[in-house]
Amino acid sequence: MHPYCEHPDDALSRLGELGLLARLRTWLGPVAPPPPAGMGDDTAVLAAGTGNLLTTDSLVHGRHFDDLLPPELAGAKLLKRNLSDLAAMGGRPGVAVLAAFLPPKTSVRWLEAFVRGLAEAAATWEVAIVGGDLTETTAFLGFNLTLTGEASRPVLRGAARLGDELWVTGTLGDSLRGHHATFVPRLAEGAWLAAESEVRTMIDVTDGLGKDLPALLPPETAAALDLSALPLRFSSTTPAQAFTDGEDYELLFSADPAWSLGGGPARWATAFRTPLTRLGSVVPRPADAPEASFGTAPLLDAASGRPLSFGPGYAHFR
Amino acid sequence: MHPYCEHPDDALSRLGELGLLARLRTWLGPVAPPPPAGMGDDTAVLAAGTGNLLTTDSLVHGRHFDDLLPPELAGAKLLKRNLSDLAAMGGRPGVAVLAAFLPPKTSVRWLEAFVRGLAEAAATWEVAIVGGDLTETTAFLGFNLTLTGEASRPVLRGAARLGDELWVTGTLGDSLRGHHATFVPRLAEGAWLAAESEVRTMIDVTDGLGKDLPALLPPETAAALDLSALPLRFSSTTPAQAFTDGEDYELLFSADPAWSLGGGPARWATAFRTPLTRLGSVVPRPADAPEASFGTAPLLDAASGRPLSFGPGYAHFR
Repeated sequence: MHPYCEHPDDALSRLGELGLLARLRTWLGPVAPPPPAGMGDDTAVLAAGTGNLLTTDSLVHGRHFDDLLPPELAGAKLLKRNLSDLAAMGGRPGVAVLAAFLPPKTSVRWLEAFVRGLAEAAATWEVAIVGGDLTETTAFLGFNLTLTGEASRPVLRGAARLGDELWVTGTLGDSLRGHHATFVPRLAEGAWLAAESEVRTMIDVTDGLGKDLPALLPPETAAALDLSALPLRFSSTTPAQAFTDGEDYELLFSADPAWSLGGGPARWATAFRTPLTRLGSVVPRPADAPEASFGTAPLLDAASGRPLSFGPGYAHFR
Repeated sequence: MHPYCEHPDDALSRLGELGLLARLRTWLGPVAPPPPAGMGDDTAVLAAGTGNLLTTDSLVHGRHFDDLLPPELAGAKLLKRNLSDLAAMGGRPGVAVLAAFLPPKTSVRWLEAFVRGLAEAAATWEVAIVGGDLTETTAFLGFNLTLTGEASRPVLRGAARLGDELWVTGTLGDSLRGHHATFVPRLAEGAWLAAESEVRTMIDVTDGLGKDLPALLPPETAAALDLSALPLRFSSTTPAQAFTDGEDYELLFSADPAWSLGGGPARWATAFRTPLTRLGSVVPRPADAPEASFGTAPLLDAASGRPLSFGPGYAHFR
């Protein structure tokens, strides 16, 4: 029996929809404003300037969380996944709507812990939950959250230039040993980097360097990487894990070399304790590299000039 | 075997994530703009003025559509459910993000038809699909769409006043015989009504009059209804179905009596062929009615003054 449905005396089906909605308001507390700003009408009515960014992410039992993860952390993770996307644009969060897919057997106390975890994260990052949707399922337990945000200079993918240096925050690999749920989205770091004019392109690492680094690189380029510099999460973490594990939720970006020459990393170190590592630089694509299209730029070992063969990062639907 | 997974040679698992993303862009066509305005970066970057409304709705196999419904209609229905919510605020649509929960056995041609149906509806109502999220599931097939919108005067629920007349568009009940999928969201009608200053409060009827009409009424009021006026969908449709069936997607609103005295219904008839019916009026809550809180206002038979007993509308999670 899964923890999320282990209390038949406490099942959602005993509450009904109106009871559940009333509980949700209580559990969310101050992060759920009353209508018209919040849930309770056909749509939420937003204040002016709620943002120029929009992103959506899901969280599914058996995929993004399991029975071992406390529901409070699962609820927080749903929001933090979206916040990490905003961070990678240099944005700050606005408001969110929540969709829940719930079997009638869902334990009300499990759901309360999940929603309270979400609410606590929302309070921490000042996100109002302004609307939502509840759908009854046969057995599937999942959630989706859509988040607005605002960035004065959104930092896009795919905009690296030849000669740029490649940087990554924090450490990589082995995320499933806790980090996938306890990570802190790099919102402050992302906003700080977006204000540095030499920072050119950025992404959050969620599917491994092998997939996410090529997303920064135009087709005519490649990345030459210093493997000895890779910031691995644990002493037992292998370089391959940094390339193929998912859920690092770290920021990967390129910057004009003028940024480090001008003391960018030193300014970073006074602003954040988060580690910052130079992984390598953007070089011309080797003439013999196969197909040139976005997302296929080769990753090379800077020492040998040879292609790395760690695999393509996390592949969904395979 | 369900139609959505009846072609093992055509399963999603043969495409993989990148293949699926490329197909999705093709299927969506012009309604999916390139990044940064559209999908392909960490978040979508929206144009200014994308809206002050935000709403989310889901569509789940076995609940909101079944194996008999052509996938094109299911895809369109996902968007139209959200558009109906905007219509009930008097809003016009902005942009949307799509979350899909897909088992690996999903047939690619089924999914193509679903997405093309969604894209055609998006083109009709000028909605750009600017982002999304794909999640692999074991067996669950479901979707969520979050939509922005804009209304200069959002028409809220719960704002009816004593003496207001109650009106409904179209016909009610028996929605499962086709209307639940073929309905046209009342966007034009909703925007027109929002521009009429005497229109006070509005909702879209999705859970039956029994549940949605009380949502317009403050606790100290009740609705006195002329049952003989109920616009029933078919000759075989019963009044009880208008009160308890769901998915009418019609607009229910109250207006100051000055609206009809001033020729509002006649102006409506020149603007729309959509039927408009006066259901009754807002009266004081009877002294003997139980608990007075939002959403519990009694519905009375205007002829007898007695409470109607059709049941509370569609109840989820029961």
